[in-house]
Amino acid sequence: MRLIGLAMLIAISCCFAQDSGDFKSASSNVLDAPYPRVDGSSRVEIRLKAPDATKVRVNFWSGPKADMEKQADGFWTFTTPPMAPGLHYYTVIVDGAEVSDPGSTAYFGGSKWASAVEVPEPGTTYYMPENVPHGQVREIWYYSKVTGTWRHALLYTPPAYDTQPKERYPVLYLQHGGGEDESGWTRQGKANFILDNLIASAKAKPMIIVMANGYARRAGQPAPNLAGKTFGSPEMRKAIQDMMSAFEDDMTQALIPFIDSTFRTIPDRDHRAMAGLSMGGMQTFHVTFDHLELFSYIGGFSGAANVFAAGNDKLDTKTAFNGAMADPYAFGKRVHLLWIGVGTDEPERMKEGIQQLHAALERANIQHVFYESPGTNHEWQTWRRDLNDFAPRLFQQASN
Amino acid sequence: MRLIGLAMLIAISCCFAQDSGDFKSASSNVLDAPYPRVDGSSRVEIRLKAPDATKVRVNFWSGPKADMEKQADGFWTFTTPPMAPGLHYYTVIVDGAEVSDPGSTAYFGGSKWASAVEVPEPGTTYYMPENVPHGQVREIWYYSKVTGTWRHALLYTPPAYDTQPKERYPVLYLQHGGGEDESGWTRQGKANFILDNLIASAKAKPMIIVMANGYARRAGQPAPNLAGKTFGSPEMRKAIQDMMSAFEDDMTQALIPFIDSTFRTIPDRDHRAMAGLSMGGMQTFHVTFDHLELFSYIGGFSGAANVFAAGNDKLDTKTAFNGAMADPYAFGKRVHLLWIGVGTDEPERMKEGIQQLHAALERANIQHVFYESPGTNHEWQTWRRDLNDFAPRLFQQASN
Repeated sequence: MRLIGLAMLIAISCCFAQDSGDFKSASSNVLDAPYPRVDGSSRVEIRLKAPDATKVRVNFWSGPKADMEKQADGFWTFTTPPMAPGLHYYTVIVDGAEVSDPGSTAYFGGSKWASAVEVPEPGTTYYMPENVPHGQVREIWYYSKVTGTWRHALLYTPPAYDTQPKERYPVLYLQHGGGEDESGWTRQGKANFILDNLIASAKAKPMIIVMANGYARRAGQPAPNLAGKTFGSPEMRKAIQDMMSAFEDDMTQALIPFIDSTFRTIPDRDHRAMAGLSMGGMQTFHVTFDHLELFSYIGGFSGAANVFAAGNDKLDTKTAFNGAMADPYAFGKRVHLLWIGVGTDEPERMKEGIQQLHAALERANIQHVFYESPGTNHEWQTWRRDLNDFAPRLFQQASN
Repeated sequence: MRLIGLAMLIAISCCFAQDSGDFKSASSNVLDAPYPRVDGSSRVEIRLKAPDATKVRVNFWSGPKADMEKQADGFWTFTTPPMAPGLHYYTVIVDGAEVSDPGSTAYFGGSKWASAVEVPEPGTTYYMPENVPHGQVREIWYYSKVTGTWRHALLYTPPAYDTQPKERYPVLYLQHGGGEDESGWTRQGKANFILDNLIASAKAKPMIIVMANGYARRAGQPAPNLAGKTFGSPEMRKAIQDMMSAFEDDMTQALIPFIDSTFRTIPDRDHRAMAGLSMGGMQTFHVTFDHLELFSYIGGFSGAANVFAAGNDKLDTKTAFNGAMADPYAFGKRVHLLWIGVGTDEPERMKEGIQQLHAALERANIQHVFYESPGTNHEWQTWRRDLNDFAPRLFQQASN
């Protein structure tokens, strides 16, 4: 009894809630871990046990980077100023070791399993598990001849998928950002709950969402050795191009055929969309503009601009993408939705790039939606809002 | 370009493989992270950057606990003696802060997202993603009146589930251990690949596997405050009993009805099995013996004994579980399989408990399978082997 009992008690008793005053344990914590915790004015308190450390810092990736304060009990604490709503990535740095906080659920970001704290948005429930029918998130494996490997992807099926076995559905391909992986859109983004809620209120059509892993390397191609290479070096540019190109082929030659043969999709361009955030936005523009025979809905979340930039911030809509947008009327007929968005608190360079893209599209009379998320940074609350605005616009112009 | 490009390059270039001599990056690492790495004699090298730390230790939960050695470049390293095959949980302790290693995939164990390193078992492929049809692992949400909450579970559907929409399947309920959660059996245990391979070689019948979260608290019941309570105290015993009882009701009153109404199951006791590891084994014995009207196949992986012990190591097969086993012949007719197993390198107390259970069942002529996993500890390689032995024995005596 002793061994199992102890393991079990760790699970049920280590971390019973210790709400104090206005502070509540974050919903992003593991089990009942008491820290991080958030108060009514959206301040976050972080606590970490490090009795022998000399210096402990907290590193919010889009927020405070600060020294934590040592307490008499061997714990270090730090309380942030009020933070924007949403999920904020962070790490802690213990005497130079940048690691994650054991109290937090692990979220894959920054190429590692990092920590994050959920700051509630008062009155907002669109990304919560509400009392509505829930779709499923499925892990799937497909073999890709492009990469020569079995590849993992996640897939959302809408609530009625299993109970209405004759129904066929449109598909949204939805990509994560750089340093993240295919788990981001459901773990961090709550894409499944967003769609559950939109579908329950008939604001969005029931759809399948496919979330692929955005990293790809062609079969036989070695990992790039980029040690010592500077940003913008020919080696780094080539590494990015190789990855983008391998991903494009993997997606169009392996993933889409697998999805269309395995799930009850409507396998035509009128019923196929692609969107992505940051790096995934860049990939979305590459893949969709190269394959307008496959896609008719396009979304770039905090990332669309960059694909156009190619070294500068100007977009020549006449020549970009082999002239796909040269005739705005023809483009508008062919592409049912071109959607771009950015958070108003994103880094200036990012925001300007997307605002300039918006302006260039306006000047060229290219129909598009431009959405600005108020008060949010290059973080998941922006992309949750993006999806919540984008998804209802999908598959409305389809022929059936 | 710069921001997205940088994030992307972190992902593709931070961690290009650095195989050196016989060492290879562990398959459990994130992306191409070079450490931890494993050599041909199953030694594991751990490396962590902690330039300002005074003391860094590595803590294998069932293996070496040792000081790491500081290198000139600010990294700390440690190489283990040869280790048993399988996935080994560990944490690192940086000046007293016990945290996970950023190079490792995060696995939920010990009530946190911990690190683990996969040591290959030469010639063994039964838990690998082989070139066979793959089933899906699905995230599902069900509402439980017992707990008053939406609950998350994972579910494996066999490869043909979607393509043969009239087929119905038996169900194995498969539980994680204490401090773990419902993600353990697929992330750590590779249960999906084990079943894919068994089904492809016709060694096991196609089946659905349901992996639930083993922690439950009744609606309105506050978290137990166990601060300062010693092991075995009345408060702790009651906390365990409350959780076991809430889980039993959640499973039988909410989960099983949800599964049987949502998936194409064969909803009778001849086609329903339950097994679990450690704490999950204890839960399996509680739930199945209380509900033999629901289950006919029972598996206890490194955990079966403890439910019988109740304060001592003797099992009275005549009286245990209200006499369910009192008549060995009747019991053998009613329960198609009683399966217990343990690793030969598990802690003595654990091993002895299960060996004594085996002996008691033998003495009482109660038909059962007793499996010992050679050279493995209270860790996932034991439970992978258990499942690989257990699953082929399921649903063979069913009436259809």
